[in-house]
Amino acid sequence: MRPEDSALVAEMLDEYGNRVRVAMAEYLRPREPRRYLYSLVSDYPQRGGRMLRPSLCLATARAFGAGEDDALHTAVAIEMLHNAFLVHDDVEDESDTRRGRPTLNALHGSPTAVNVGDALISVGLKALLDNVDRLGLALAMRVLIEGEQMVRETVEGQAIELGWRRDNAIHLRESDYLNMILKKTCWYTTIFPMRAGALIGSRGEVNLDRFIRFGFFAGAAFQIQDDLLNLIGDPIKYGKELNGDIQEGKRTLVLIHLLEHVSPEERFRLAEMLSRPRNDRSVDDVVWIRDRIDAYNSIPYAQRIAHGLAGAAQHAFEEVFRNVPDSRDRRFVQGIVRWVLART
Amino acid sequence: MRPEDSALVAEMLDEYGNRVRVAMAEYLRPREPRRYLYSLVSDYPQRGGRMLRPSLCLATARAFGAGEDDALHTAVAIEMLHNAFLVHDDVEDESDTRRGRPTLNALHGSPTAVNVGDALISVGLKALLDNVDRLGLALAMRVLIEGEQMVRETVEGQAIELGWRRDNAIHLRESDYLNMILKKTCWYTTIFPMRAGALIGSRGEVNLDRFIRFGFFAGAAFQIQDDLLNLIGDPIKYGKELNGDIQEGKRTLVLIHLLEHVSPEERFRLAEMLSRPRNDRSVDDVVWIRDRIDAYNSIPYAQRIAHGLAGAAQHAFEEVFRNVPDSRDRRFVQGIVRWVLART
Repeated sequence: MRPEDSALVAEMLDEYGNRVRVAMAEYLRPREPRRYLYSLVSDYPQRGGRMLRPSLCLATARAFGAGEDDALHTAVAIEMLHNAFLVHDDVEDESDTRRGRPTLNALHGSPTAVNVGDALISVGLKALLDNVDRLGLALAMRVLIEGEQMVRETVEGQAIELGWRRDNAIHLRESDYLNMILKKTCWYTTIFPMRAGALIGSRGEVNLDRFIRFGFFAGAAFQIQDDLLNLIGDPIKYGKELNGDIQEGKRTLVLIHLLEHVSPEERFRLAEMLSRPRNDRSVDDVVWIRDRIDAYNSIPYAQRIAHGLAGAAQHAFEEVFRNVPDSRDRRFVQGIVRWVLART
Repeated sequence: MRPEDSALVAEMLDEYGNRVRVAMAEYLRPREPRRYLYSLVSDYPQRGGRMLRPSLCLATARAFGAGEDDALHTAVAIEMLHNAFLVHDDVEDESDTRRGRPTLNALHGSPTAVNVGDALISVGLKALLDNVDRLGLALAMRVLIEGEQMVRETVEGQAIELGWRRDNAIHLRESDYLNMILKKTCWYTTIFPMRAGALIGSRGEVNLDRFIRFGFFAGAAFQIQDDLLNLIGDPIKYGKELNGDIQEGKRTLVLIHLLEHVSPEERFRLAEMLSRPRNDRSVDDVVWIRDRIDAYNSIPYAQRIAHGLAGAAQHAFEEVFRNVPDSRDRRFVQGIVRWVLART
């Protein structure tokens, strides 16, 4: 991507991210029960993050004509619900680390972490209810309806991924994977932020259907790139353990490609390794799987798919934003699609 | 309570319960992902239950002037959110049994159960959004705002109770307990069902503040009676393991009374027993604690409190329903307060 696009994306993530952080602080203010709940509710949100999702919502809203802060409560809700999913995901995956620090479940136990996730859902809902004052009843209700669908799609995607791991699914296809991440990743990362933004910016006048395609292409490219970084990222910049997904037995596009292409003997061995609980996969197992990934060119395959999706996303962007006049916000959304693949 | 009151309560729980079950079926219809999600989402709701909460909502709404089914979606939402709390509670308490069958976490593992609870929250939210068609935007939004507060209060109450167990809190007072169950039990059992019902029935005209007092008295009497049944219920009718709360180390009013009144030596021993994980409390430990409960008359004490609260609830009922004309629905709500203590 061109250096000036990259600079714009970084600058606006910073600017909009800060704006959302200020608004979030109001929803995360200390109150009772503090020690058992609200000091934990604000933990993940305060650990920082790129603020990609709420920024995408603010930029889309403004590109479609919203006033300065019309989408701010919605952006806060997106970040709160994102954090709720992270908290519950960490419990479900028994993860130890999140953004370089111990997870809430590692710090306070899974029972409390489940409850903190529930609290974050209710804070997200509160932010969406607070849309009424600025947007009016009808528009606020439409955003709520979008929000409910987003939560439902995410939970369905999570169910599919958890089910695959529990059943040690090994006969999966590219299309199964893409359907799963459409639900699990794309709805809350790209589709809902842009649909809600366009709804608010156009006061309900824009056709939202087209955002599903666009959001799917961009969100899927984002997720595949994220999984690739787990295998080939710069260990220092990446901040998570390399090959952690292999350790977890996560059904990534790379793993699904590998399972489709290995020899029957190798598939048998791979299935046996994947059938064991996470901590029963040895370093040797992980090294062997990683070696097979290289032998079968599963990484270049996933890179090709991610590039194809990013290209489709750029095409879809032109279609969806055709009648939207040029602005910083419009350029930011366009830049995000390119930025997804440039991440390291 | 008089036999005719008791018969009316039983009859209307049956009638309204069935009405809610029919409406619920629409929200629980089989769909994909079925095996990994929706067949599990419908599990707890299909195990049956008294339908106390949704019936209380329907009856209050109609007593205050609602049409036949004006509060039906709200009643469905109450039952869905109740089931969401049950699913997450069972994960948090590592419970094995719910309504005579293995819990969702026992059947499918905690990761999937956490996700099923999240799905039930989204189904409950969907039912509240569906209020718009019948109630209009403004009233539907007010019910949503009530619903968000209910979820928040419940999560706060749950945080307090989980925190007490995690920290092995032993210096608790009656007032700590009553504040905890106001949040954890009363909001979703009595306060929200009646507030939402009165809101719908009166089209937003009634003052909802008074329902907090009334709902607290009735709900607290209900919770204390529930805890007492765990100690002195008929083992066959009760359907759960007697003394299970002692095994779990649950901070009931009975246990709090005991902790306040035992000798220093006994408190030391009791604190040590309670500090251990649930499965490290032996049958002998439970028998000893149960024996101390009898020695210090903690059960009659809790019974006195429950009766006092039920009396206060009857008084509050007269106040809140003063201008509400006599009807089967009004008599049902009044009967519920008496029924709470008559349960076995």
